[in-house]
Amino acid sequence: MKNPLGELVEQLSLLPGVGEKSAQRLAFFFLSLSKADVHRFSRVLSETREAIRYCELCFNISLAERCHICEDLERQHDVLCVVSEPKDVFSIERAGEFKGVYHVLGGLVSPLEGIHPEMLRVQELVDRLKQGRVSELIFAINSTVEGDTTILYLTQVLRPLGVKLSKLAYGLPMGADIDYTDELTLTKALQGRVELE
Amino acid sequence: MKNPLGELVEQLSLLPGVGEKSAQRLAFFFLSLSKADVHRFSRVLSETREAIRYCELCFNISLAERCHICEDLERQHDVLCVVSEPKDVFSIERAGEFKGVYHVLGGLVSPLEGIHPEMLRVQELVDRLKQGRVSELIFAINSTVEGDTTILYLTQVLRPLGVKLSKLAYGLPMGADIDYTDELTLTKALQGRVELE
Repeated sequence: MKNPLGELVEQLSLLPGVGEKSAQRLAFFFLSLSKADVHRFSRVLSETREAIRYCELCFNISLAERCHICEDLERQHDVLCVVSEPKDVFSIERAGEFKGVYHVLGGLVSPLEGIHPEMLRVQELVDRLKQGRVSELIFAINSTVEGDTTILYLTQVLRPLGVKLSKLAYGLPMGADIDYTDELTLTKALQGRVELE
Repeated sequence: MKNPLGELVEQLSLLPGVGEKSAQRLAFFFLSLSKADVHRFSRVLSETREAIRYCELCFNISLAERCHICEDLERQHDVLCVVSEPKDVFSIERAGEFKGVYHVLGGLVSPLEGIHPEMLRVQELVDRLKQGRVSELIFAINSTVEGDTTILYLTQVLRPLGVKLSKLAYGLPMGADIDYTDELTLTKALQGRVELE
């Protein structure tokens, strides 16, 4: 006879960052919940996965043809934030500072991994800009080889369209101790120094 | 319109050790899986929770009337390991050293929290021992106020039944550095010192 939790532990071990021991702990946690609570959890999980699709305009994840951000009339639809993945949208939304809308590329240019610009939603971005309703575009893309390549490529493609382009500032994170800050961040912070009035 | 992942993130936040940010990361992980994989996950979770019950003999979790350990004829059914919770059974099984069977108390005596011996499976343990087929009983119970109280209580109750009683050894964990070991562990290790031949 087999371990009654075997299959559940196996499934839970698939989660990122969950080893066998954590999976077992999670399995016992689920056993401690009522049957109704566990069924609700399962239902929400299955239903969400089933219902999720991409917004036809910005390619963020959505439950409808257009996502809740694109449908929000109170946001500035003339300011576009370009990100790599839907999860970046969620990170920026959590900060609560950005009031514009998004465009999700679906990845970054990476010749080494065989990801070329035509595999990303670049044409869709060009089409959005050509409609003339966007005045500013902000790249919120990680500063990696792939990220910098993508920004460089998009800048060349989009420059002729006459839209103001910018990217996120790099520098010291809030609360940072200069003594403990890595050299690259310190270099970026120096290069991007802000003049005092 | 609401965040399409809101309900899933809320459910995932209920997991132990999972904050809002981890819940979001997990939600995106589930979106990256195929619908079939997510449905399998949900199904295993719901079905396991639905099927789990307690073994009628040892009160370990089980899929049948008796658990896979109690049903295993190759184990020593005359050696009983007494634990607090089913998860302790799994920890001991993982070590692979113990070949006997278990008795799960379902908690520990704690007058402060209002948990009295009659709320645990003590009578069931006494009944098992009275059948005369158990020759040795090992307490595998954490050394806390509640654990020590429980062992003390059970020792008094079970002593007249003429069964050999023991508890797990305390001492240095394998690979420990004496320099970094806490005083209590060092005290236990000294008290339980093993004579060399």
